[in-house]
Amino acid sequence: MEKIKLGPQTLLFPMPAVLVGSKVNGIANFMTAAWCCIASHKPPALSVAIRESRFTMKGIEENGSFSINVPSASLVKKVDFCGIYSGKKKDKSKIFQVDYGVLKTAPLIQECPVNLECKVIHSIKLGSHTLIVGEIIETYINDNCLTDGNADAEKIDPLVYSPGTIQYQRLGEVIGRAFHIGKE
Amino acid sequence: MEKIKLGPQTLLFPMPAVLVGSKVNGIANFMTAAWCCIASHKPPALSVAIRESRFTMKGIEENGSFSINVPSASLVKKVDFCGIYSGKKKDKSKIFQVDYGVLKTAPLIQECPVNLECKVIHSIKLGSHTLIVGEIIETYINDNCLTDGNADAEKIDPLVYSPGTIQYQRLGEVIGRAFHIGKE
Repeated sequence: MEKIKLGPQTLLFPMPAVLVGSKVNGIANFMTAAWCCIASHKPPALSVAIRESRFTMKGIEENGSFSINVPSASLVKKVDFCGIYSGKKKDKSKIFQVDYGVLKTAPLIQECPVNLECKVIHSIKLGSHTLIVGEIIETYINDNCLTDGNADAEKIDPLVYSPGTIQYQRLGEVIGRAFHIGKE
Repeated sequence: MEKIKLGPQTLLFPMPAVLVGSKVNGIANFMTAAWCCIASHKPPALSVAIRESRFTMKGIEENGSFSINVPSASLVKKVDFCGIYSGKKKDKSKIFQVDYGVLKTAPLIQECPVNLECKVIHSIKLGSHTLIVGEIIETYINDNCLTDGNADAEKIDPLVYSPGTIQYQRLGEVIGRAFHIGKE
């Protein structure tokens, strides 16, 4: 097997395809993000990398809050739409049914099976992107996406973003129990 | 559809299952991480959340460098092993074939189809976890994982970690081209 050097690349597999929500000028707006992950257990927190110029960022800075919405694969066209068009030019507030939770300024997409309501606790300007760290204030899940009280990825049927070939995929077969299969 | 409140939970779908490598006391060590994502395009950077007590963290702090290695699904048992056992008790330097790149202190797993060599540029103590932001200095990929010069997720066959049900999955079917399907 030969290894090829690609130079510094932003390649990681898999990436999620989530919708970041914020309220801009009083209206819900959403952008698609693949650069999002959990950042801490206590406090429960996540990070998402966003360009400063993004319309969604305006709302995050204004309110100090945002939402992360995990879409199902069936929402792929709407998710991609939110990644292509800016809220500066397209009103994205009517694409989904929107509700608000504890924070009142983090729009939660009702069609998405998992919603995380977040309060900004850190904002780190890195260059092209600012890394927003949000404390997770509340988590919402569709009741039909739980198995024995646990979030079930197979029922959530999340979208996967694959960089490189630039496509969306679904999850595939289960291949083992974590914190278990490695003991064999 | 009824929404259930779970309280603040560290739930996101999908999550990767990558191996974080560092050199501790001169020896390569690896830990499994699911809380890792790209953080910036320019400079190319990624973030990974690690507990301060982790053996791997010692090496990251000592050298200011680390690697992120994307394993294929076939490595699932070794990946899980690295998530269960600490380098304090098990020598993990012999599990994989290890090489070094530009930084000399970021161990690169040869069996993993994608390797990212990183230099620490930020370290943000959040509580239980420290968010390490690393500039990506070099990216390596197996030549048989490229299609028309682009990293191909289907050839890489990465591991997916699904929290909630706590299991590993593979990627599934391609459902659309990103930045394209949303125009329909």
